[in-house]
Amino acid sequence: MTVYDVIDAKKNGRALGAEEVGYFVNEVAQGGASDAQIAAFCMAVLLNGMTDEECFALTRAMAESGARTPRPAEGVFADKHSTGGVSDSTTLVLVPVLAALGVPCAKYSGRGLGHTGGTLDKLESFPGLTVSLSPERFARQVREVGAAVAGQTADTVPADKRMYAVRDVTATVDSIPLIASSVMSKKLASFADVILLDVKYGGGAFMHTPKRAEKLARLMVSIGEAAGRRMCAAVTCMDAPLGDAVGCNAEAREACEVLAGKQNDLSRLSLFHASKLAAAVLRIPEEEALRRAEEAVGSGAAREKFAQMVAAQGGDARYVYEPQRFSVAPCAHEVRAAADGFLNIDALALGRACVEMGGGRKREGDAVDHTCAILLKRRPGVQVRAGELLAEVCCNAAAPAAFALADGAFTLSPRRRVRPLVYAYIGKSGRA
Amino acid sequence: MTVYDVIDAKKNGRALGAEEVGYFVNEVAQGGASDAQIAAFCMAVLLNGMTDEECFALTRAMAESGARTPRPAEGVFADKHSTGGVSDSTTLVLVPVLAALGVPCAKYSGRGLGHTGGTLDKLESFPGLTVSLSPERFARQVREVGAAVAGQTADTVPADKRMYAVRDVTATVDSIPLIASSVMSKKLASFADVILLDVKYGGGAFMHTPKRAEKLARLMVSIGEAAGRRMCAAVTCMDAPLGDAVGCNAEAREACEVLAGKQNDLSRLSLFHASKLAAAVLRIPEEEALRRAEEAVGSGAAREKFAQMVAAQGGDARYVYEPQRFSVAPCAHEVRAAADGFLNIDALALGRACVEMGGGRKREGDAVDHTCAILLKRRPGVQVRAGELLAEVCCNAAAPAAFALADGAFTLSPRRRVRPLVYAYIGKSGRA
Repeated sequence: MTVYDVIDAKKNGRALGAEEVGYFVNEVAQGGASDAQIAAFCMAVLLNGMTDEECFALTRAMAESGARTPRPAEGVFADKHSTGGVSDSTTLVLVPVLAALGVPCAKYSGRGLGHTGGTLDKLESFPGLTVSLSPERFARQVREVGAAVAGQTADTVPADKRMYAVRDVTATVDSIPLIASSVMSKKLASFADVILLDVKYGGGAFMHTPKRAEKLARLMVSIGEAAGRRMCAAVTCMDAPLGDAVGCNAEAREACEVLAGKQNDLSRLSLFHASKLAAAVLRIPEEEALRRAEEAVGSGAAREKFAQMVAAQGGDARYVYEPQRFSVAPCAHEVRAAADGFLNIDALALGRACVEMGGGRKREGDAVDHTCAILLKRRPGVQVRAGELLAEVCCNAAAPAAFALADGAFTLSPRRRVRPLVYAYIGKSGRA
Repeated sequence: MTVYDVIDAKKNGRALGAEEVGYFVNEVAQGGASDAQIAAFCMAVLLNGMTDEECFALTRAMAESGARTPRPAEGVFADKHSTGGVSDSTTLVLVPVLAALGVPCAKYSGRGLGHTGGTLDKLESFPGLTVSLSPERFARQVREVGAAVAGQTADTVPADKRMYAVRDVTATVDSIPLIASSVMSKKLASFADVILLDVKYGGGAFMHTPKRAEKLARLMVSIGEAAGRRMCAAVTCMDAPLGDAVGCNAEAREACEVLAGKQNDLSRLSLFHASKLAAAVLRIPEEEALRRAEEAVGSGAAREKFAQMVAAQGGDARYVYEPQRFSVAPCAHEVRAAADGFLNIDALALGRACVEMGGGRKREGDAVDHTCAILLKRRPGVQVRAGELLAEVCCNAAAPAAFALADGAFTLSPRRRVRPLVYAYIGKSGRA
C-alpha cells in the first residue's frame, strides 16, 4: 500500500477500508505523505464523500495519531464544542453554571481565527489571567474549583493539525466528513465523557443551511457514540451575532452581565446547553436541570464560581462583579437605519469588520486588540425606524474598511426574517 | 482574486474564466501557488471536469508561462507526439522518411519514464550520438540535413513542469483536460505548424478504452486548431508492444531494420504517420504521400537520411547500415507458450519488466542499461502451440521479478483477440 494508492482509490469513488485510512493518517502524522498528497486526498473526499464507516475510521486514526489528554481528576466530565460563531461566549457562561451545579468542567479551548471569536482570547480580557496551565495546575484547579479553561499546549492530534493547515489554503474545509473527523478526533483524544456539539448554521457559519448543519451534527454524534461517548448536539442559528457584543473585552463583559442576570439569545443558549449537559451528567430530567441552571444564575452561585475560576487562573476577579471595568475603545462610527423595516444583522460581516479593526486574527499568531468592539443597539428581527441607532463601532483608529463592512451588515426587510435559534436537538433524554 | 478562490470555484463545479485560469497558471509558474494548492486544483479538475473553453485557456496560459522555442529555419515544420507506448520507435523511422520527402523535421523529444520508452534514450544507443544540441547547432543541422532530434534544455513550459510533478504523486495524471493541456501547452510553445498526435489506447496506455482516447484526441485537436495550428490525430492500439523489441539498443536496431525494409506494425504505423504529415505539409493527396514514403524506404533514401542525421549528431552511422552492431544482452530467460491458443501480449507488463531489469527508469534521472531487451518471437493474435518460444528476455544479471512479469505478459485465449492498430483518425484531408 502507498499513499498514492489511497488517494487513487478515493478519487475513483471507492470506500476505503479502516486499514487504508489508518495507513494514510499515519503517513500524514509521520511526514510520509506530502502536503500535495494531503490536499489531493482532501479534495477527493470533499467531492466524492465518505461513508459513515470511512469517517469513523478516519476519526479514530486521527485521534490515535498523538497522545491522549490525561483525565485531570475522577468524575464524569462534560464538554461543549461549537463549530464557530460570532459573539458566542456561551463557554464563559456555561462553564461556571455547570460548575455551580456540581458538574466538573475541565475544558480545553481555542483562539479566534477569521471571523469567529475564540474563548481563550475572551478569557485573556481579564487582566492577569493565564490560559497556559500545566497539566498539574489544570488538574488541581479542576479538583479545587470544579472549573478550568485552558489552551492545549501539546500537539494532541498531529494528523489533524497537518490536515487542517492544508485544508485551510486549498478550499477543502467545507466537507462534512472532514469537519466531523477533525472535530471528533480532538474529542476522542480527550477525556470528555459527555459531549455537546453546538453546530452552527446560517450566514456566519460554515454550514449555510440548517439541513446541512444537522447532517454534520448527526454524523459527529454517531462517531462519538461509536467510540463510547455520550453525545448530544444542537443545531443553532448563526445568521446574526448571538449576543449584543463583538470583540474580546466587550464579549467578556457581556458574559459577566449574563451571569448577573441579563437575558438575551446568549443567555438562553448558554442555559439550554447547561441544562442538556447537567441532565446527562447528573442523570436528572432536563426540566429539572434547566431550573437548577436558572437558579445558579439567579442566586449568584454561577457568578461566584466564575470569579473563583478567574482568580485561580491569575485573573482579576473584580471584573466578574464589575463588568464596566472592561475597557472598550471609544465609539468611532455609528450605524443607523437607512429606512424603516425589520432588521437583519449579518454575523459574518460583523466578524470580518472586527478582524479588520484589529479585534480579531487574519492569521494564526496575529496580535489582537481586545478593546475593539461592535456593540449592537437593536436585535435582529425588531422593527426599526429610519435614522435609529443600530450599532456602535468602537476602535482606536479610523478603520474605513471595517466601518463599510459594519454598515453593510445591517439591512432592512419589509417582513420579519429570523430563523430559529435552536433548529434541532439531537440526543438521548437526560434521564438515566 | 486569490489562488484559493480559483480552487474554490472549480471545486464548486463552476467553469473558470480565461482570466482566472491565467491568474492561477501564473501563480503556479511564479511560485505563488503551493504544491498543495496545485494538487487540490488538479483533483477538482479531475473530478469536476473542464469545459473545452476552460481547457483552451489553461493550455494557452501554460504555453505562455515560459519562453517560446525559436523556429530553427524557414519552412513548414511537422511534429508528431505520442502519448507514450512500449516498443514504439516510430519517431526514429518517421523523421528520416519525412526528411527524405523534403519535409523538414526539427523535433524535440523526451526520455523514457515508467513503462514507456523515450526517443532520446533510443537515439543515444548510437555510439557517440548526442541529443544535447545548442539552438545554433540544432538550426544548422535542420538546414543542412533536414532532420534533427534533440532534448529540450531550457524550461519551456515551467507551469506544466510543476503541475506534472505534483500530478505524478497525487493520482491526478488520468484527467483528459489535464493531459490535453499538458501535451498541447508544450506544442503551442513550439514552432510546429503541422502536428500529428498519436493517442494510444489499451492496456499499455493511460487511456484504456479507444473511446476515451478518441475524446482526448479530439480535445487536443481542437485546442491546436483554436491556436491556429494544423492538427491531426490517430487513436492507435497499445495493448501489445508496437514492434518486436523492447529496450533501447534493440529498438534502435529495429528502427534501422524497418528503414531497411522490415515490415510489421511498427513500419505500418510509421508510414501511416509519415503519409499524413507529408500530405499536410506538401499539400499532396494522402495516397500519393504514402506511395512516396514507401519509396523513400524502398530506395534506401530514408535510411541514408537517418545516417546523415546520426552522423551530424556525432553518432556512428555504420550502425544504421549494419544494425547487428547494436549489442543486446545475452538471453537470460525464455518465455514459452503454456498451452495452445491465440497469443495476447501485455505491453504494460513488458514495459515494467524492462524497467525491472534496468532497461528503463523508475525515477527521472535513473541510469538506463541500453543492452537490456525483450525480443518477441511471435506477434499478438497468432496461433501458437504449447511449448513454442514466444520471447527472449535479455539482460546481464538474473532478474527474477522481470522474468515473472514477462511470463505473465503472455497469455493465450481460445479466440483471436486483437484490437485495431488504428482505431480512429481525426483530421482534415491532406489535399490543399
